[in-house]
Amino acid sequence: MRTDADVLVVGAGLAGLSAATRLRASGLEVKVLEARERVGGRLLRRALGDGHWVDVGGQWMGPTQTRLAALATELGAESFPTYAQGENAIEWKGRVKRYRGDIPHINPAVLLDTLRVQRKLEALAKRVVVQEPWLTPRARELDSQTFWSWLEANTLTRGARTLLEIAVEAVWAAEPADISLLHMLFYTASAGGFDQLIGTNGGAQQDRFVQGAGGLALELGARLGEDIVLQAPVREISHAADRVEIATGQGTFLARRAILALPPTLAGRITYEPPLPGFRDQLTQRIAQGTVIKCMAVYEEPFWREQGLSGQGLSDRGPVRVTFDNSPPDGRPGVLLGFLEGEQARRLGRVDGAERRAAVLDCFARLYGPGAASPQDYFEQAWAEEPFSRGCYVGFFGPGVWTSYGPALRAPIGALHWAGAETAVRWNGYMDGAIESGHSAAAAVLAELGRDAVGEAAVAGEAA
Amino acid sequence: MRTDADVLVVGAGLAGLSAATRLRASGLEVKVLEARERVGGRLLRRALGDGHWVDVGGQWMGPTQTRLAALATELGAESFPTYAQGENAIEWKGRVKRYRGDIPHINPAVLLDTLRVQRKLEALAKRVVVQEPWLTPRARELDSQTFWSWLEANTLTRGARTLLEIAVEAVWAAEPADISLLHMLFYTASAGGFDQLIGTNGGAQQDRFVQGAGGLALELGARLGEDIVLQAPVREISHAADRVEIATGQGTFLARRAILALPPTLAGRITYEPPLPGFRDQLTQRIAQGTVIKCMAVYEEPFWREQGLSGQGLSDRGPVRVTFDNSPPDGRPGVLLGFLEGEQARRLGRVDGAERRAAVLDCFARLYGPGAASPQDYFEQAWAEEPFSRGCYVGFFGPGVWTSYGPALRAPIGALHWAGAETAVRWNGYMDGAIESGHSAAAAVLAELGRDAVGEAAVAGEAA
Repeated sequence: MRTDADVLVVGAGLAGLSAATRLRASGLEVKVLEARERVGGRLLRRALGDGHWVDVGGQWMGPTQTRLAALATELGAESFPTYAQGENAIEWKGRVKRYRGDIPHINPAVLLDTLRVQRKLEALAKRVVVQEPWLTPRARELDSQTFWSWLEANTLTRGARTLLEIAVEAVWAAEPADISLLHMLFYTASAGGFDQLIGTNGGAQQDRFVQGAGGLALELGARLGEDIVLQAPVREISHAADRVEIATGQGTFLARRAILALPPTLAGRITYEPPLPGFRDQLTQRIAQGTVIKCMAVYEEPFWREQGLSGQGLSDRGPVRVTFDNSPPDGRPGVLLGFLEGEQARRLGRVDGAERRAAVLDCFARLYGPGAASPQDYFEQAWAEEPFSRGCYVGFFGPGVWTSYGPALRAPIGALHWAGAETAVRWNGYMDGAIESGHSAAAAVLAELGRDAVGEAAVAGEAA
Repeated sequence: MRTDADVLVVGAGLAGLSAATRLRASGLEVKVLEARERVGGRLLRRALGDGHWVDVGGQWMGPTQTRLAALATELGAESFPTYAQGENAIEWKGRVKRYRGDIPHINPAVLLDTLRVQRKLEALAKRVVVQEPWLTPRARELDSQTFWSWLEANTLTRGARTLLEIAVEAVWAAEPADISLLHMLFYTASAGGFDQLIGTNGGAQQDRFVQGAGGLALELGARLGEDIVLQAPVREISHAADRVEIATGQGTFLARRAILALPPTLAGRITYEPPLPGFRDQLTQRIAQGTVIKCMAVYEEPFWREQGLSGQGLSDRGPVRVTFDNSPPDGRPGVLLGFLEGEQARRLGRVDGAERRAAVLDCFARLYGPGAASPQDYFEQAWAEEPFSRGCYVGFFGPGVWTSYGPALRAPIGALHWAGAETAVRWNGYMDGAIESGHSAAAAVLAELGRDAVGEAAVAGEAA
């Protein structure tokens, strides 16, 4: 039989690149088929000039993200702390205030309520069986309601609901109504806790990469070199127990296994021959991508710092609900980052670009003063418009999906294996999870093909 | 410009066939592109011999389904009442009982509770803005919770929850946890009420077609003749304001407009050039198909009738939760119909066929006696396994979908129009709704192309 590779990897995002790297290190021939003209998937950097970069895709690294840290070390990628000095800004009930530390100056009853509810969530999350969430005690009950319903029943104040809504939007780029409570708990457990999800210092937003997280993907891609086939969207896959054939515009490829490392909703659009079982197909019908437009305004310098502001802010009015200082390490130029998430992204994704820009800058100006209204440059990335992402940050599970379809998420089907941040057990939905998923799929394929996994021992040690 | 038709219709289900028929009656050239080797989509009949038919797809017609009735009249299709004489059977808490009429002999507190909750649902459904559910008063709140959450909060007895769960499974082939409360109310309102949805006499299950509902599609298809192109799955559509080009294995077709008459989740898998807006794409990521396996056991005669049983039954144990007498009009042979729906279909869809058959027949035997265990013939249709349906009866909306994405459901995009039972305003999800959706899309296209719609006046009159 002619083969072009031992394994075909579909998707050159961080999951696919990690899988391919691991497979090649174990001596297998690999081809990575990528739809875009670039590698990186949901990682994408943009040049600011003078060797400075910002990420318009995923960008942060937090503590306990050991796989991402190991990759950065291996690639020699420098990181630096997210700027978080000085006071944060909050727009709340029509007024803008500044505060230091984690706790805004708002009604103490709201703060106490929020803290109480957060503790309750942490306690529930601890009970989740992260490997198999459907085996969690009372999984059906947890999975039968939205996180919105749980918040309605468990918060005492509207303020706490609003704060948690903003947190949910920031983490999933979706609304509390969209997400199953069980999924919310699973995701929290997979990251090690709610504070880890929403935190900067000590949390998932702690560090950035000098060359951009997009740079990690480019470097990984460069090392794979000609094993990556760009502009090769995969529409059809013919497969059997020990054979996969994929026709692309760049030729037809044959191999013994394939790893599909792309968002579930996109994996579900491929035509498989033979067709996939209904159980798997119905799963991918039920995992939608979040909705985010990442907006950045560029200024000569980060003027808010001089006013003692960190650039970290939140607003109950929006449309931007969360902001960050996204300047390069030396603070030249100054970059304000604002996220349009969930409903705000859905609504503003449909208006004229000038109107959206005005709404974002108006929000920046309310938080950081009139100077924020006139940036040197403004740009945005609307991930739902990208045909090969169709949403960010991540696919989420609505009610009923984990308990009805969970076992279909990672189970290989003949020669087909699944990867991608949505399949990760640890740091699901994050770069760290994407790497984990790629390594897991690679390990499974290596075992099937009777090869030793190079580097697995090291990873096991690091996870222990 | 070369054109092969004025309008291309994608999908030869009832919606597509109805659209094409209407367009052709108004003098337009039409091509219907159908993936399968047959017309009918989710309508499919099976021969029992001696000119007898059963439907393994959609089959029933109810009062107020005026479009379906008009079509049947036009095609000369005879209908007959679903067999509903004698007593119904119910398996409840480990015991099988018989009862006459609508009300089983179970705990009166459960019956009263069920009735009370049903009335409450009817009252809520009356407030839904059926054309635009997202404009319903308090739509966000209604759409932010699952029907499960609402049942938990609004039923007093576990029995009422079980009865309503069975009803939900029977109507949507999904679980109360899967469905947004707003969607449940919209769907109820679109059918004219909850009793209309679940009823036999006076409800959606009232009548059947002598030649099968599948026969309607075949006859419509025969009249369209060579305007239908079979085995032409549509994977890519190139489109502009006044131009649609579709390449299929049966050639490439050019036209001025296209009507996509297929389930939203399948329409979302097509590659569009230019790509569709994120708002539309994210909608189709969020409308999953229900899960049903339609099972039929064939006996020499409908022996349950001699025992005074109607063949209509329900079971709180399952796996079949609802049964019907599905014999031909003359009762030769006898056919018992059992639905595996929602979770039961997901679970039993993954086991060996013999095991599934045994579980179904065991349930029939508990309800109708040991004779039911040994049919002459047994067959089933698992719609989630069908690559060109991927679930039945219908696509449903989980929490948040209507209020976030509703306007994308029917809005044309340039030359592309949408049809299918999921887009219907009246009898959404039913054959009647499919016809409505086809006629609506045809009318919109005719208006754009400056043609008078033939037959619209008649329809308007009939709806008034």
